[in-house]
Amino acid sequence: MTTRLRFLGVAAYEIVSRRHRILIDPFLTGNPSAPCGPNDIERPDVILVTHAAPDHLGDAFAIAKRTGAPIVCGADVRALLLDQGLPSDQVRATVWGIRVEVGGVLVEPVECRHWSMATLSDGRIVSGVPLAFVVEPEPGVRVYHYGDTAVFDMRLIGELYHPTVGLLGCAQPRALAHLAPGAGRMVTGEQSPREAALTAEMLGVKLAVACHYSETSDPDVQEFLRLVSELDTTGKRVAMAMEAGQVLLIDGNSHRLEDV
Amino acid sequence: MTTRLRFLGVAAYEIVSRRHRILIDPFLTGNPSAPCGPNDIERPDVILVTHAAPDHLGDAFAIAKRTGAPIVCGADVRALLLDQGLPSDQVRATVWGIRVEVGGVLVEPVECRHWSMATLSDGRIVSGVPLAFVVEPEPGVRVYHYGDTAVFDMRLIGELYHPTVGLLGCAQPRALAHLAPGAGRMVTGEQSPREAALTAEMLGVKLAVACHYSETSDPDVQEFLRLVSELDTTGKRVAMAMEAGQVLLIDGNSHRLEDV
Amino acid sequence: MTTRLRFLGVAAYEIVSRRHRILIDPFLTGNPSAPCGPNDIERPDVILVTHAAPDHLGDAFAIAKRTGAPIVCGADVRALLLDQGLPSDQVRATVWGIRVEVGGVLVEPVECRHWSMATLSDGRIVSGVPLAFVVEPEPGVRVYHYGDTAVFDMRLIGELYHPTVGLLGCAQPRALAHLAPGAGRMVTGEQSPREAALTAEMLGVKLAVACHYSETSDPDVQEFLRLVSELDTTGKRVAMAMEAGQVLLIDGNSHRLEDV
Repeated sequence: MTTRLRFLGVAAYEIVSRRHRILIDPFLTGNPSAPCGPNDIERPDVILVTHAAPDHLGDAFAIAKRTGAPIVCGADVRALLLDQGLPSDQVRATVWGIRVEVGGVLVEPVECRHWSMATLSDGRIVSGVPLAFVVEPEPGVRVYHYGDTAVFDMRLIGELYHPTVGLLGCAQPRALAHLAPGAGRMVTGEQSPREAALTAEMLGVKLAVACHYSETSDPDVQEFLRLVSELDTTGKRVAMAMEAGQVLLIDGNSHRLEDV
Repeated sequence: MTTRLRFLGVAAYEIVSRRHRILIDPFLTGNPSAPCGPNDIERPDVILVTHAAPDHLGDAFAIAKRTGAPIVCGADVRALLLDQGLPSDQVRATVWGIRVEVGGVLVEPVECRHWSMATLSDGRIVSGVPLAFVVEPEPGVRVYHYGDTAVFDMRLIGELYHPTVGLLGCAQPRALAHLAPGAGRMVTGEQSPREAALTAEMLGVKLAVACHYSETSDPDVQEFLRLVSELDTTGKRVAMAMEAGQVLLIDGNSHRLEDV
Repeated sequence: MTTRLRFLGVAAYEIVSRRHRILIDPFLTGNPSAPCGPNDIERPDVILVTHAAPDHLGDAFAIAKRTGAPIVCGADVRALLLDQGLPSDQVRATVWGIRVEVGGVLVEPVECRHWSMATLSDGRIVSGVPLAFVVEPEPGVRVYHYGDTAVFDMRLIGELYHPTVGLLGCAQPRALAHLAPGAGRMVTGEQSPREAALTAEMLGVKLAVACHYSETSDPDVQEFLRLVSELDTTGKRVAMAMEAGQVLLIDGNSHRLEDV
């Protein structure tokens, strides 16, 4: 059995196993590194949205509308999606700790220390709780998506949810700076490279996959790759940064990047 | 001196000692296991509301309106209650850490990792911070109400607030699934049975009382009872699941369920 | 090189070094202990606002408007400031972990467990994420502002951000009780004196500076000063409570209160 984890740029992933097809944070329109558009996405069993930021919520509505796929998200994102026209029974709101089964997929939302806010069509502002997720596309392959969390002591999440693959934000997508106008500039992402590498250690993942960047050449991504090894007490952790469009093949305990 | 802790179903409790009468999360109307209605509740000294969810806020407004009892809650719940017509001086907003004295009761709100959202009468949406509470109905009897928190490292709360009785969510009330419509289904509550049992250990409570269920026969409740012992490093922790309407009598270091 | 840290009462500070002038939580109008008014404040390089509470947001808008100084804050405070008329490019929203450089100052926002809510001019309610901050006015002088957080395990913040000076809330400004009307009364601030002293230990600061009070004679402030020493495992930590208007001079590893 093989799990195919395809990187769609920024924080978007498509995870396909024999049993499940899971789409996470499908930001494609406006994502300069996206390898495809929202209409190219095959119907997933479930779409996971970590929070309402445009570079995470992305095309979730359009893909759900076209394919009928259900969405798992926080209550604020659910309010927004229903406001945009998705039917109530296509969206499942959850929160940290409440495991849900949607589209046949067991989804485990875990704590994420970030923020989430959306504006409804009538101007009302709705704030919610951002989510990180753990899903298990095949037995033993447990994928953690960080959902833009800041660093915190994640050892308990490691012990209770034992993820094997971590999609860990370590940078700020330079190409998206225009999405956050304002004074001055952002220097790091929600986690510095060191903090991201530290979460890999605290979570105990085998594969530490860089997330939340425009280009693998970003110095923060490169520093993350270096620091994962430096902070690794297991001697076995593998760090990688995928090009958008690349597929990581995970087969039991082995893995490789698919030839293009 | 004896403290009487009466379970009113789901997450609702009435705690009565010689000095205090405390009502927590009084969800009675629409609670299939409630042993009484809101009009049967004697005037409490204070009503504690952990967050704005209907199965926790419940009949707080009606009981406060009828009895004049003050309410302690978060700022979003206060906004909702004032919007519904309670006078400002009947509601005390607080947040994690700010101990308040209301109705002669010292109320200690502690961190709760969940969410809280309400809609005011004019449609405005207000989000806030959910609360867990510690109260001391008699000296040495310190009751922690979890307020729907997800699991986190609660050892510091244990050390600083040293609760002796924990009201710990370990399930999802099956009878209330209709309150959260959407795709798929919820598999667990905010804490799995193992996570809830782990919080009992981290908090160091003597009595670990199951909370947030419809029926004590719920497999998650039964697993919680089993796991509390398994994770107990003190060898002295007692786990219990009360029937709605039952009263737990706590007398210094001893306790027993009242005969019906 | 000397850093001048001036206390402006409650939680407001002006930090001036040869390189930077930083203003934090400039609550002056309505602050009974403020040594000056908003028009007396020299143009800062940057204004930091931890959250939307009136005793923290304070005169930030007026000072920014008059001086043109940029503001760093959470997204809800940014929404409020733009609503009040500040231009978008004068305000930088950030969140825990995203370091920003604004006005030439590197600002490091760290986790803060509190709440933040504001009402816009059209009545809309916006909730956000409160911030604590670390700034370095000169190399090696790293100032942490607690931003009204409740206590939590801050050891990781200590390890990753290694603050040397902690501005630590340990009381509730008695003179401001009218800002929070409601039933009963507040007994403590967001942190008890013991909790505040414990954060000094967890953060590893050399200087533990009391914050969030009206008068240094407040019993909670006095208890904080005592407990900082009691909980200090380094044997070197210095606790102090400044009078509003006083200036703390920090010169490398030495410090003293300026003569008035």
